[in-house]
Amino acid sequence: MSQTVRACVGEFLGSAGLAAVVVGSGIAAQRLSPADVGLQLLENAFATALGLAVLILVFATISGSHFNPVVTLVDIALHRRRRVIAATYLPAQMIGCIAGGILANAMFAEPAVAWSTTDRSAWPVLLSEVVATAGLIVLIFALVRTGRSQLAAPAVGAYIGAAYFFTSSTSFANPAITIGRMFSDTFAGIAPESVGPFIGAQLLGAALGYAAVRVLFPVAMPEPAVAQN
Amino acid sequence: MSQTVRACVGEFLGSAGLAAVVVGSGIAAQRLSPADVGLQLLENAFATALGLAVLILVFATISGSHFNPVVTLVDIALHRRRRVIAATYLPAQMIGCIAGGILANAMFAEPAVAWSTTDRSAWPVLLSEVVATAGLIVLIFALVRTGRSQLAAPAVGAYIGAAYFFTSSTSFANPAITIGRMFSDTFAGIAPESVGPFIGAQLLGAALGYAAVRVLFPVAMPEPAVAQN
Amino acid sequence: MSQTVRACVGEFLGSAGLAAVVVGSGIAAQRLSPADVGLQLLENAFATALGLAVLILVFATISGSHFNPVVTLVDIALHRRRRVIAATYLPAQMIGCIAGGILANAMFAEPAVAWSTTDRSAWPVLLSEVVATAGLIVLIFALVRTGRSQLAAPAVGAYIGAAYFFTSSTSFANPAITIGRMFSDTFAGIAPESVGPFIGAQLLGAALGYAAVRVLFPVAMPEPAVAQN
Amino acid sequence: MSQTVRACVGEFLGSAGLAAVVVGSGIAAQRLSPADVGLQLLENAFATALGLAVLILVFATISGSHFNPVVTLVDIALHRRRRVIAATYLPAQMIGCIAGGILANAMFAEPAVAWSTTDRSAWPVLLSEVVATAGLIVLIFALVRTGRSQLAAPAVGAYIGAAYFFTSSTSFANPAITIGRMFSDTFAGIAPESVGPFIGAQLLGAALGYAAVRVLFPVAMPEPAVAQN
Repeated sequence: MSQTVRACVGEFLGSAGLAAVVVGSGIAAQRLSPADVGLQLLENAFATALGLAVLILVFATISGSHFNPVVTLVDIALHRRRRVIAATYLPAQMIGCIAGGILANAMFAEPAVAWSTTDRSAWPVLLSEVVATAGLIVLIFALVRTGRSQLAAPAVGAYIGAAYFFTSSTSFANPAITIGRMFSDTFAGIAPESVGPFIGAQLLGAALGYAAVRVLFPVAMPEPAVAQN
Repeated sequence: MSQTVRACVGEFLGSAGLAAVVVGSGIAAQRLSPADVGLQLLENAFATALGLAVLILVFATISGSHFNPVVTLVDIALHRRRRVIAATYLPAQMIGCIAGGILANAMFAEPAVAWSTTDRSAWPVLLSEVVATAGLIVLIFALVRTGRSQLAAPAVGAYIGAAYFFTSSTSFANPAITIGRMFSDTFAGIAPESVGPFIGAQLLGAALGYAAVRVLFPVAMPEPAVAQN
Repeated sequence: MSQTVRACVGEFLGSAGLAAVVVGSGIAAQRLSPADVGLQLLENAFATALGLAVLILVFATISGSHFNPVVTLVDIALHRRRRVIAATYLPAQMIGCIAGGILANAMFAEPAVAWSTTDRSAWPVLLSEVVATAGLIVLIFALVRTGRSQLAAPAVGAYIGAAYFFTSSTSFANPAITIGRMFSDTFAGIAPESVGPFIGAQLLGAALGYAAVRVLFPVAMPEPAVAQN
Repeated sequence: MSQTVRACVGEFLGSAGLAAVVVGSGIAAQRLSPADVGLQLLENAFATALGLAVLILVFATISGSHFNPVVTLVDIALHRRRRVIAATYLPAQMIGCIAGGILANAMFAEPAVAWSTTDRSAWPVLLSEVVATAGLIVLIFALVRTGRSQLAAPAVGAYIGAAYFFTSSTSFANPAITIGRMFSDTFAGIAPESVGPFIGAQLLGAALGYAAVRVLFPVAMPEPAVAQN
């Protein structure tokens, strides 16, 4: 298998894993802690922070562990990758997230596909997605541009764990998983009508994050020679 | 004591420790948080993620910290160890997990041995074990084959902590602990009738994980010289 | 943008992020877990520990990630920075924390600014702030003076996560965020009348912490050459 | 201040900090989450795991961060320190833990000293202390004897966080803190009558741990040259 295909498979599997963790732990939390939504979110955040860190570790050497279209697009815009990569990464991420959501539904005996009915279109929620996505972009590229990308796994996991609580949107911050979460009418779902505005907010956040990275980290430092270890 | 015997003792003690952590914290959670099963699982996952990471650290230089027959078998299949090791590791893991479960029962004044009555044989639960075991194998050997095995302790702890929630089986992902958990009729138990299908699902998951490792990480990179530090 | 301006922007953004995490997750916790204040605090502490660690990582190479006037003042007193830095850092920290609190209010559709009504002036609460601030100063400068400042991100996050629980003040330990939390009448707020005594207690704690650092770590060791990686 | 005195002060402050974290977060948990003892223990364990890791980091270069008589005694028995050190470390640890418990009481407006009424003398609880202390000793000296003592801070924090749940004693595993917790009639307290049996169980556990270290790690490997960074 060529390196290009392997990277694409990596993005598919990693995105599927991410969606399975997010949706699956959301279903578990909703079923097992019916009396307290905050506790549900804590369980969901605990599982997501740990699971996302693990997935980033596993696929880092294969695809760079993007699992997120806006990460790929900003990566290209910062001139570290060729544009054509978007043509394979983005579909792999989106199909992966849909597949992962379906897998989660299957593991919990939910209908394989059920349109979510959770409306997430109020403006404070959309503002939250702008903030959450901008923060994610700044974090990732702050690490990359200062030669500390080997810290991305725990740091991105920690960021998303925190952002589940400090935003009112529970911080999707990822167009691919936004699409994937449309197919599960459970705790982590999002109604199809809310998907367009959500992705718009995420793109705006990504643009703001990109601008901040350009200003704050104008020069990319090299990774240290031992970094991949 | 020879290195071979010490490795075997290490697998016994580590497996016993793992079972004691899983079963013991399950009993504590069930007793102390009777009103919310999700909270019980959060307490159980918190203790297991931390405890498993510690056990892997302690025994890494002695036995490689497998504590799990499918890890040993995949390790052999990937040609990194001699086959005869399975003849000592697998019994040590199984007897260790049984001993650890009994120790947990004793620490909580439960009957030393009581057959679990928790049925875990529904197909979504078995699908969960396939997924959980495949993911565990991919994680461990992704790290090993990219020269990052010193990250296994926190990474495997984090993975299991997440998998308690993103699967409907609470992710045993280990035939030895499946056997050990049969002897405690408490939160973390499994009815003897479910053990066969469970282990079957785990073996299938391990095979899928093995195949994925071969495809995704075809070449094993060396550990860096300073890795053990 | 000059390095000096960038550092100032870094302090502003980092302080705003910190206040947004603290206030935002406090609002989420209060709304989602109405039945148990301890669970609210656990959710708030979980988000703050992870979010603060991430913010310190992001801005470490830009401004040193103080986000806290007493850290800047002790840093100057230990003669590692020029005094003029306080003239830019302190306003950036205070304005940042106010902005972050307003942003959190906006993300949760709270009034942009509402004076907090939470009294926090009892003497055990003030004693708690003395202890919490002294501990924070000792931690940070213990790491700096032993060449381990690259551990500050997880360590300071962990410290604040613990201090939310081991003090009766929930450990603000930061005059800038004390001011910022005055503007949100929610879980993490502080009534304006309590702000003066609170900051007084924090300054006393910082002075005690400074003295302890001088005694315990009389000589500053250099950072290792590879530390920034 | 001589290095010897500084080490002694370090043990005092670290032990006081540990007792303040354990007792303080126990009081907070008990007050804020009155309806669920498991949630109280989760909050207590969360704060202790993080706070203990931080304390070990802070005092590692000063005193070795023992905070625990059995750690000091085993350290001497393994011939890495002179025996006279016990004459200063043990009193510093015990007085420190008492002072820390009193400080916690003061921060929460509890009586400065109140004899605990929590009986902890049932045999499963004592068995738990044997297991918890043996495990702690094996963990610490496994790291020390394999040149990985720089991992002790997160590892020991994680171990204690897990052991709060996998034992029925909530794992004191430390004679000094056992004495300190006698003076607070709150969540983390222990009745004076239970202190003798508790410490006996801890000494037995330490002896078992010591024997296991001798067998499992017969040769001490050197720390790597860069370990202190």
